[in-house]
Order: sequence, then structure tokens, then C-alpha cells
Amino acid sequence: MKLYYFPGAPSPRKVGLFISEKGLDIPTEILNIRAGEHRTKKFAATHPGLTLPVLVLDDGACITESLAIAHYLEQENPEPNLFGLDSKEQALVLMWHDIAMFEGYLGIQERLRNSPEFGEARALPGPVPFEQIPALIKRGEKRITTFFDKVERRLSESSFLAIERYTYADLATYIYLEFAQRVTGKNLYHEREHLADWAERISKRPAVTAIAD
Amino acid sequence: MKLYYFPGAPSPRKVGLFISEKGLDIPTEILNIRAGEHRTKKFAATHPGLTLPVLVLDDGACITESLAIAHYLEQENPEPNLFGLDSKEQALVLMWHDIAMFEGYLGIQERLRNSPEFGEARALPGPVPFEQIPALIKRGEKRITTFFDKVERRLSESSFLAIERYTYADLATYIYLEFAQRVTGKNLYHEREHLADWAERISKRPAVTAIAD
Repeated sequence: MKLYYFPGAPSPRKVGLFISEKGLDIPTEILNIRAGEHRTKKFAATHPGLTLPVLVLDDGACITESLAIAHYLEQENPEPNLFGLDSKEQALVLMWHDIAMFEGYLGIQERLRNSPEFGEARALPGPVPFEQIPALIKRGEKRITTFFDKVERRLSESSFLAIERYTYADLATYIYLEFAQRVTGKNLYHEREHLADWAERISKRPAVTAIAD
Repeated sequence: MKLYYFPGAPSPRKVGLFISEKGLDIPTEILNIRAGEHRTKKFAATHPGLTLPVLVLDDGACITESLAIAHYLEQENPEPNLFGLDSKEQALVLMWHDIAMFEGYLGIQERLRNSPEFGEARALPGPVPFEQIPALIKRGEKRITTFFDKVERRLSESSFLAIERYTYADLATYIYLEFAQRVTGKNLYHEREHLADWAERISKRPAVTAIAD
């Protein structure tokens, strides 16, 4: 098994934190996305989609998409449980994870990838060039704000997002929160007291401090 | 248990086809999205996110997001299996489903929701208004084409998307294909022979003909 990884981008970082929470030791090759190390012919032979993370299984099967990788590792290593124990818990974890992906992560992606400093024609991940659309910078910021307002409302009624303990939904959302603050330069804790309390609790988890940069 | 549903939008339609494949009988209320029946105070009390589909469990828990709903129904009704039998199969199904969501569905959404005929300030789903960005119409079409080119390449090496039998990944992609053709007015089978063959096989499934409009 081998993981292709980069700690500075949110999707691979989610899988890195998941592995840290599970206490797993997986052979890893870091490809620096900022230096374009994932956009080479060599890596395209492994994964033509040119995204990270990628988990290559011992039989050569290539698993992309962070949810699929984390779910695979959960099935192979059930403890500690991060995807829910019964069908209802699992549904709530998948639900909050998809909300975080569609309402949080996509906003962060719009904000980051359409900015002049990101570089042209990479407004979407992958091998096909997509031109930047400057109007998406502002829309991305609005999506980020809207998402963390929703998380704040949810955390005013529950200690964690999906169920009453830490799950993959919290893990993903925490990575997005950290990344959103870095990308926007804004303090998202400001005037969101439940979010701030939740983030502080997560920041103190041993698995989180172990992967801190 | 109760399902809030609309057959004319791809996310609820995926769950409708999933229920048809499973042979389940679930009490259902149709809310006509085109007539705005999901944007009412009454429905907001059930689901403030104002999206469909929503599955309300007998204990009142509200499951949104089509993947979460389908996964719940799969856990409660394991046969026929549509999410994979072991950890590797499940990872490949989730992987191709997420590829279809991010590379297919989001393109369809951009193409549809930024068009003048869709109506203003609903460029993204949910209760918060987002203005249309006309440049996303063309980008959405390019994403759709890019996605179905990728599906064509995959189907040139495999009879189905994730594993060598029909799964939720095929189900979702088939719904997106049908919807993309309706939204763009383009024949996506043209010059994609493996896609055409795959779609013809799926179109003849009893569960598909049972939900045809």
C-alpha cells in the first residue's frame, strides 16, 4: 500500500488527519502541489486525474477521492470508529461530510483557484485547463461565510456535527475551517462562539497536534 | 419513515431509482421544485436547507444528501447490493460516485442554474441567494463534456464504472447523463460508443423502466 499525499491542501490533509486518528503507518510519498509535482507524466501514469490524495493498494488498485480512501481505511481498521456505528449514525456522518464538501470545500476552492496568485487556467482540479472566473472569488467568500454560519447553528445544539462524538464529518470540517482562514485571511471564530469552542476541542486532540505544521 | 421527493431533479431522482432497484415501498410526498414547493415555511420547518431529497426517519431524524439517504437504505436493506461487498468494492463505488458528483453533477448544475430561464439569484441550491454568473454556463458545458469523455474511457476497459457489475456509481452517472442531455439539448452518446452501450443496458433494467416518465 502507498499513499500519495501533500499536507498543504485540504483533501489530502483530511486523509492525513484520518490516518493520524487511526494510528496507522502507511508508506507515503509527498508530492508538492504548489511546485506542480503532481502534474508530471510519471504521476499521470498512476493517476491521470492528477489529484491528491491517491491510495494504491497492494494489488495495484488506485483509490482516489478522500471519502473513498478514508472509508476504505475505516473498513480495514474499524477502531477507533469515525464513520458511525449503525445505519443512522453512518447516514448522519455522510450527510454532514457532504454538506461540508458542497457548501464549505467548494467555496474555498472558488476563493482560492480563481485568485490571480493561484495561476491561470487551473480554476478546477485535474488535467483539463479551466480559465479563472474572477466573480467566483467573491462568491467563494460568501459560500465560506454561509457554511460556517450553518456549522455555528448546528454546534449551538450539538457538541459535534453529525452525532454526539467526534467523527469524520468534524474532521473534514475542521480541516476546511483551518484552510478557509488561511485562504481568506479572516478569523472565522469571531462572533461564532460554538464554532470556536468546538475548534479548540478538536485542536487539542493528539492526532491533530501530531500533524500540525 | 417519509421521503420528500421530486422526480424531475437529478439528486432526488437518484434516490428514486435506488428505491426502485431495491424494490422498497416508502411513503413519499412530492414537492414540485419547478413550482417552488420546496421553498415554503412549512418545508423549511422540516429542512431549513430547502433541498430535496429528504428522508425523515420514524424517530424524527432528518437525513438530507442523496448519498447519505441511499447509504442508509442500503444498510437497512442489504439486497440487492449496490454499494459493494468488501472494503475495496465499497471504496471504488464511493470513488466513482464522488467523481460523478464533482465532475458531472456540478457541471450540470452550473449549466442549468446560471441560464436566464432558470430565474435569478438561485445559482446555488439552498435558502441563501447567489447571483447568476453567465460565464458558468459555458464552463458547465465543458465540465459535462469532460466528464462523459472520462466515463467513455473508463467504460472502454470495464462493463460498469466502479466494479464489474451495476452499482450506485452507475446509477448516479446514468441519472446525470439523462439530465445533462435534457439540460444541454446535446446527444452525449454521439461518438461515445461504450457510453451508449452502457446506457442502453441500464435503460432496460426493470427498475429504470419502472420510474421512466
